[in-house]
Amino acid sequence: MEIEEQAALTSGADFWHTRAVGDVPAVMVTDGPHGVRKQVVGEGLGLLASEPSTCFPPAVAMGSTWDPELVRRVGAALGDECLAKDVAVLLGPGINLKRTPLGGRNFEYFSEDPILTGVMGAEWVEGLQSRGVGASLKHFAINNQETDRMRVSADVDERTLREMYLRAFQRVIQRARPWTVMCSYNRINGVYASQHRWLLTDVLRGEWGYEGVLVSDWGAVVDRVEAVRAGLDLTMPGPDEPGDRALAGAVRGGSLPAAALETASDRVAALVRRAVAAATPGATFDAAAHHALAREVAGRAIVLLKNDGGLLPLAADEASIAVIGEQARTPRYQGGGSSLINPTKLDNALDEIAALARGEVRFAEGYDDPGAAAALAAECSVAVVFAGSEEETEGSDRTSLELPAAHLALIERVAAANPRTVVVLSNGAVVRTSPWDAAVPALVEGWLLGQAGGGAVADVLFGVVNPSGRLTETIPLRLADHPSYLDFPGEQGHVRYGEGIHVGYRGFDAREQEVAYPFGFGLSYTTFEYSGLSVSPVDGGLEVRLTVANTGPRDGREVVQVYTSLAGSRVRRAPRELKAFATVPLAAGESAEVLLRVEAADLAYWDIELGRWVVEAGEYTVAVGASSRDLRLEATAAVAGDDERRPLTTESTIAEWFADPRGAQALTEAFAAMAAAGGGAMAATASDPAMFGLMASMPLERVVAFAGDAFSPELLAATLKAAN
Amino acid sequence: MEIEEQAALTSGADFWHTRAVGDVPAVMVTDGPHGVRKQVVGEGLGLLASEPSTCFPPAVAMGSTWDPELVRRVGAALGDECLAKDVAVLLGPGINLKRTPLGGRNFEYFSEDPILTGVMGAEWVEGLQSRGVGASLKHFAINNQETDRMRVSADVDERTLREMYLRAFQRVIQRARPWTVMCSYNRINGVYASQHRWLLTDVLRGEWGYEGVLVSDWGAVVDRVEAVRAGLDLTMPGPDEPGDRALAGAVRGGSLPAAALETASDRVAALVRRAVAAATPGATFDAAAHHALAREVAGRAIVLLKNDGGLLPLAADEASIAVIGEQARTPRYQGGGSSLINPTKLDNALDEIAALARGEVRFAEGYDDPGAAAALAAECSVAVVFAGSEEETEGSDRTSLELPAAHLALIERVAAANPRTVVVLSNGAVVRTSPWDAAVPALVEGWLLGQAGGGAVADVLFGVVNPSGRLTETIPLRLADHPSYLDFPGEQGHVRYGEGIHVGYRGFDAREQEVAYPFGFGLSYTTFEYSGLSVSPVDGGLEVRLTVANTGPRDGREVVQVYTSLAGSRVRRAPRELKAFATVPLAAGESAEVLLRVEAADLAYWDIELGRWVVEAGEYTVAVGASSRDLRLEATAAVAGDDERRPLTTESTIAEWFADPRGAQALTEAFAAMAAAGGGAMAATASDPAMFGLMASMPLERVVAFAGDAFSPELLAATLKAAN
Repeated sequence: MEIEEQAALTSGADFWHTRAVGDVPAVMVTDGPHGVRKQVVGEGLGLLASEPSTCFPPAVAMGSTWDPELVRRVGAALGDECLAKDVAVLLGPGINLKRTPLGGRNFEYFSEDPILTGVMGAEWVEGLQSRGVGASLKHFAINNQETDRMRVSADVDERTLREMYLRAFQRVIQRARPWTVMCSYNRINGVYASQHRWLLTDVLRGEWGYEGVLVSDWGAVVDRVEAVRAGLDLTMPGPDEPGDRALAGAVRGGSLPAAALETASDRVAALVRRAVAAATPGATFDAAAHHALAREVAGRAIVLLKNDGGLLPLAADEASIAVIGEQARTPRYQGGGSSLINPTKLDNALDEIAALARGEVRFAEGYDDPGAAAALAAECSVAVVFAGSEEETEGSDRTSLELPAAHLALIERVAAANPRTVVVLSNGAVVRTSPWDAAVPALVEGWLLGQAGGGAVADVLFGVVNPSGRLTETIPLRLADHPSYLDFPGEQGHVRYGEGIHVGYRGFDAREQEVAYPFGFGLSYTTFEYSGLSVSPVDGGLEVRLTVANTGPRDGREVVQVYTSLAGSRVRRAPRELKAFATVPLAAGESAEVLLRVEAADLAYWDIELGRWVVEAGEYTVAVGASSRDLRLEATAAVAGDDERRPLTTESTIAEWFADPRGAQALTEAFAAMAAAGGGAMAATASDPAMFGLMASMPLERVVAFAGDAFSPELLAATLKAAN
Repeated sequence: MEIEEQAALTSGADFWHTRAVGDVPAVMVTDGPHGVRKQVVGEGLGLLASEPSTCFPPAVAMGSTWDPELVRRVGAALGDECLAKDVAVLLGPGINLKRTPLGGRNFEYFSEDPILTGVMGAEWVEGLQSRGVGASLKHFAINNQETDRMRVSADVDERTLREMYLRAFQRVIQRARPWTVMCSYNRINGVYASQHRWLLTDVLRGEWGYEGVLVSDWGAVVDRVEAVRAGLDLTMPGPDEPGDRALAGAVRGGSLPAAALETASDRVAALVRRAVAAATPGATFDAAAHHALAREVAGRAIVLLKNDGGLLPLAADEASIAVIGEQARTPRYQGGGSSLINPTKLDNALDEIAALARGEVRFAEGYDDPGAAAALAAECSVAVVFAGSEEETEGSDRTSLELPAAHLALIERVAAANPRTVVVLSNGAVVRTSPWDAAVPALVEGWLLGQAGGGAVADVLFGVVNPSGRLTETIPLRLADHPSYLDFPGEQGHVRYGEGIHVGYRGFDAREQEVAYPFGFGLSYTTFEYSGLSVSPVDGGLEVRLTVANTGPRDGREVVQVYTSLAGSRVRRAPRELKAFATVPLAAGESAEVLLRVEAADLAYWDIELGRWVVEAGEYTVAVGASSRDLRLEATAAVAGDDERRPLTTESTIAEWFADPRGAQALTEAFAAMAAAGGGAMAATASDPAMFGLMASMPLERVVAFAGDAFSPELLAATLKAAN
């Protein structure tokens, strides 16, 4: 292939297609991730009308199921819709961490925890790709805000980057091998992701062994030559003829190695061939079955936050239900931006409640006339208020956690009018629930539930579905409590990741802060008991066994969560880190043994001194429970770890030398030699117990400097040799 | 001077002297800062016995006076003691910010606020240097912890560095011209302070115009050649013959410019000549007068935190006083490490209370036998418990804010035995006062008060001195609340300054956290009223006038504090920033007009885009009060500011282009040209109001890339020209 052809292959033909070059045809890539946004052809370039496809629950809801198998089924269904629409690559999943509850695109992401995110992301990719359609794992990397997203530099230290923001990517790439990975718009420590050679080549390909295509987010490439040099394969959208010429010119001029461009174009060609081989002309999908799946997932995603006095579930013969709030009739079921799906069908909660209720169902719009709504509530036996945020969208972050003032006023009025008031929330990221939730006996977190969410809400309200969703992000008491608060969204082109590893619940736990509802939390209509925890080391990780019993009157699902900690760790750790989880369906009265695996890799921290993952040896505490703050059982287990001795250097402190047996002996001998060579005063000082507090932190090289000629370079070399 | 002689002059002769070279004699430099620690000559090198000198209150206490004039008098007295001891340079003041209450050396520093610190530091330097003795402003820079202090890299962004950690240095250097500045041990963003050319040369000398000597902290130099190259003049201690040889070799070999070494040695020589000229053979100092000054300052430093029911002051004829706690008899009056002074005299509170009391004074050691102490308290009409921390020292940080368990138990027992219990604290940095202070009606923060502190405590207890000290650091409810908590003390060689500018009260205020006692807080035995605030712009800053009246029954001093804020600022700011303060002595019933100046420079923030200080134009809120959370009056004032238009570039976003009148016109024309050249789709998209949310944050260069050949380089150049 000619250089110019290679260059052409590394940018798109238009907004949604790769370039046909030579015998390499064009294929279509299109927006996702919770549906197939195949755009209707038109004059504009951006977010135009798209063909109908199933709007599954966005990731905010899918994550809340804590059920990998369910996510895999959605992935496969999405794959079938892609095949039916001749789409080769669906642009998802989004697996950025929810660093801040204000993130405008949080609804497209799974969680504030990297392991939960990684598990869910991998299943999504495997499900999709099982149908012969490629995923595009995005947005790589550390794209945790919309504010100034095209320029802002995420200023982050390497441990935080590795352990928190890259960890889910690493997991998905190594386990599910996505066909493509999409680089993000932002900078990372000053360098654009699209030009970040360390990230794209050293880490992604070198360390993680990624072999697929690296595609840019749409418009993320500033300099085609630098992008290819850094390891990017495909720049979208296109055409970008000036960029193609610049690339070819750089290769011909010798400033870009020919192999770099050739490798990129080869990878794009391979992707196209793979897609062409999997294409299934004439394929169709079963819209009704997908709608049913969307309803099933939505029902599993709903989180019951509060249920005082067992107000829920409602009896089917509840005398009269006041359904209040326009969102019950006109659902808010997805966010704005590139993921906006044109649904095949759209349910609403009002109709679905009416379908399940045997009693009277009355409706009031509510937001514009809370008085009328309160009057209606007073006349009915129960009131269900629908409230929610109105603003989550790609391109801008939220500025507040509060519900709209009209919704808050409505809740207050209705709750005052009817003590049996249920609030159902629709929101793409957490909203503040305090202090108003104190006045509401039942609170249902309904997220954005996709096109079948209305039915799912009705299912949960009437107990057709026993809620088992769990929070994948902390609901704080106040925005100002959040670990990211002081640093978000940054200014003047930079956002500091000042909370470090203390993202989400890790930060609330580290500061021992109260929260409204903790990470992992969610109620059920039944109750579960935990017993018989045993933890044993297996393959460098841990095997966790326990028994969970459904002790209540209804069938249900428990989400068993495993958190670890390590007292006295060499590095700072959050008090609790999620390491494993399992969704356990149990009939009323049933119990089951649950086996969970904590893998060695998930116990590791990133050691910046050694520049690698380290599983620290020690006695780990393993806590198992129903949320991050409802830990029912605890055990400890010794982990052998893979620590290595750190070599002693001239920069090692006196304390570090004396803490090491060989180092202590070598240094004692060196001090004796120093004293003999006229360095007695320094030797006496360094050996004086009264001075140890001050000397302990002194690197050996400073002692050497203090001793002048009495600590010769030869003596130093001999001491280092003896110690190591 | 030969190169070898120049090199010799840039390292010390021994621990405490510069090198005599040619006609440049040796002079003595010695530890401070709250006394003259002239070491007795001996075999060791470190912290050996020293000659007696006045132990003035350490900086933690001096800062609490909020009285620059008092600090200046202490500086002058220290100068006199140096002259009497033939000391040319006293190693102080320490003006690092108190980033964390755990800082082991906080007792040597003034405050968590940069302006308060800078004002106090400048007065100290001017006082000292008025006697012909040089100061050594330390530790330059961002040396805010003892943990791993010789290696740790303070990882900090430039705005935080400039506005918080360098600001006090800049003020002292520009106003008081210290003879020497001492570089710190630590690294700053990976580079040792002693080798940090940007810090030592670009900023300190280039921007701030510093002309004195830059001396290393003792043992801070790792590489003599790199240190001189960075701008360091004098490496201490010495001798360092290997280093001298390396320096001379580098100059002779051409790897170090001869001018660099010559400049350094010239500066050292100039310092020595200046010191020699000021030396006063046969000088003495008045130890009794200095002791009296130490008592005066200590009395002014004490902060009355709580005084329910006016328990204090005690009447001279109080029937019987139980003085409890060994610290009343064996005072904790200074911290450990290089500032440890051998006092000329040492008062204790027990004797001084007995001297002022006309009733019975009884004593119990307390800590080892709280039961006996409680029994004594029950028998007396009032109990005064002395408690305090025991661990502040150079070389190690604290690990807890809690008082020793024995002290807490003692307080609890005594307070239960006698409802009239006063607690007097001795501590070098804040200790936790909650929840135990709820059980104690009166609480006196006595810091570390120097050799005359015992008398000062008695003065305050009996009302001989009406307390006027104010907190220069927040007392948090819990350590975990502190802005620095998640990041301190760092690990593996790095400490992240994650809270950014939100140091101390700025962080508590930004997160709207409750605290035990806020920055600036302190009670009096009288009361003050504020009235008649007016604020007017003067010289780019603000002139603040108000009237303060002593409305109570006793003479007293009020510390008037001025805080500013700017709503809608371009950059994130703390809700309140201290900008000016005044200590106002008022007789009972007296009132006075107080005039304070907020200087333009103190209103400025550091703009990282422009790379300079910017006074932002706008309507500033000026709040005046008795603490950071007891603001009595508020006004606003327009500040013209010195903003400049920021040029539009290819990286400016579409929103930024349209926000600028010339930019909007130029871009509108460019889009028209683009459409005419075949880029209609992109032009339509960029102009589509529905797309604006997504397009607004797009840098122009990305639009250009999307448009391909339709947005030519010529069109881009013309657009930029038209806009700027």
